[in-house]
Amino acid sequence: MLDHPHPLAVSGQFLAPPAVGPAELEVVPLRAGRSLSTARVALAQDGRALLEALVSAGRLDTDRGPEWQRAGGPPDLPPVDECVRGQPDVPGRFRINILDHLDIRLDPATAGALAGRPSGRLEMRGWVRFHDGRPPDPLALLQAVDALPPTSFELGIPAWAPTVELTVYLRGLPAPGWLACVARGQLWRGGWFDEDAEVWDAGGRLVAQARQLAGARPGRRPSSGGSRRCRRRPGRRPRTW
Amino acid sequence: MLDHPHPLAVSGQFLAPPAVGPAELEVVPLRAGRSLSTARVALAQDGRALLEALVSAGRLDTDRGPEWQRAGGPPDLPPVDECVRGQPDVPGRFRINILDHLDIRLDPATAGALAGRPSGRLEMRGWVRFHDGRPPDPLALLQAVDALPPTSFELGIPAWAPTVELTVYLRGLPAPGWLACVARGQLWRGGWFDEDAEVWDAGGRLVAQARQLAGARPGRRPSSGGSRRCRRRPGRRPRTW
Repeated sequence: MLDHPHPLAVSGQFLAPPAVGPAELEVVPLRAGRSLSTARVALAQDGRALLEALVSAGRLDTDRGPEWQRAGGPPDLPPVDECVRGQPDVPGRFRINILDHLDIRLDPATAGALAGRPSGRLEMRGWVRFHDGRPPDPLALLQAVDALPPTSFELGIPAWAPTVELTVYLRGLPAPGWLACVARGQLWRGGWFDEDAEVWDAGGRLVAQARQLAGARPGRRPSSGGSRRCRRRPGRRPRTW
Repeated sequence: MLDHPHPLAVSGQFLAPPAVGPAELEVVPLRAGRSLSTARVALAQDGRALLEALVSAGRLDTDRGPEWQRAGGPPDLPPVDECVRGQPDVPGRFRINILDHLDIRLDPATAGALAGRPSGRLEMRGWVRFHDGRPPDPLALLQAVDALPPTSFELGIPAWAPTVELTVYLRGLPAPGWLACVARGQLWRGGWFDEDAEVWDAGGRLVAQARQLAGARPGRRPSSGGSRRCRRRPGRRPRTW
């Protein structure tokens, strides 16, 4: 895939939750074409399958603008300093390891759940960048699409929202700077909800789109400390907040 | 998967175009859980890989209403009789085999391309049902999400729009009757565009959501008759219109 360095379409289904630590990746090439290469990727730990994904890779053009784009632009976010900063340690709740690496600032208008006042809508907005100051690259976008807390928090469900399926499309190479992220869902039914994410770069360009199907059950309590592993239901992925 | 008869999340990547005729399916179980089972499915013809997909199956509840739904409803379609009927044979163009089975009626407001007056937007709306009168079932929804012509027609690109990746979520069991379908895209850039589809049943319920990444190159002419196979680029799927 030397000529196809960018994962243009990644669709993954989550089989079991990972532990922090090394993992094995198995990559099976499926097609090598002129403008696209496709592979199947399996992630496992100690022989236990955790994730299966399909990846079509190609090349994103740095300079090219859109041939057409629907009206609308980046999410209308307050300045970074007026947003709510994500904390890896939430007293009495759980540790969010991803926030050791990502600097996330939530729009207060969609962060009501963190203060016990959920908005009642499947919507979350915020700024995302790396703590160490390195600029976002295409692989960072795969992380950014799912960096915000689950939108189901804003329906008053403070539990993990395990992902069944996540698909990401990369649409452009990101400019250095903060990424503006927005996630919105349309329907929560039978314990499942959808969530669409957009990532816009500092130049105001749409650089990634994602959609996921995840679970939300109001009866579940948030996981905490030592028993986190056993409270996770096998075969679904814990969300990152 | 006896307890999990409904494909809740299906994500497929298209490797090569099929020919009309028999095909082989290989199904590899990946996980058997309480509420979900997951499998990998490969479709081939004469040993040639055409499609690879991941499927998580569960059970949709007939009676349950949504726990939460965003404002908005089915697409605002004119009555069926005022819509444009899809024809399997378009003189001087190509044959659309799917229209032997599906009865598709397009909203004239988004069917301008068929009369040489594309709307200039990635949007298409229409009614879909089976010609033989049988009611839609969950598997029919997997077809309905991609039954309308490519929205790229409405950007004035009358060529096939080969799909790279397609993900479908089933959200409810469809009521008998016409399905109201809408497809919209956000960005066409570097030759790729996204397309989101919704399918609403005759009871006004959202029963399927889909998203795909597809190719659209303005330089290509529409395929016609005998040379259709060679004008298709390998590794992408021809769209159904």
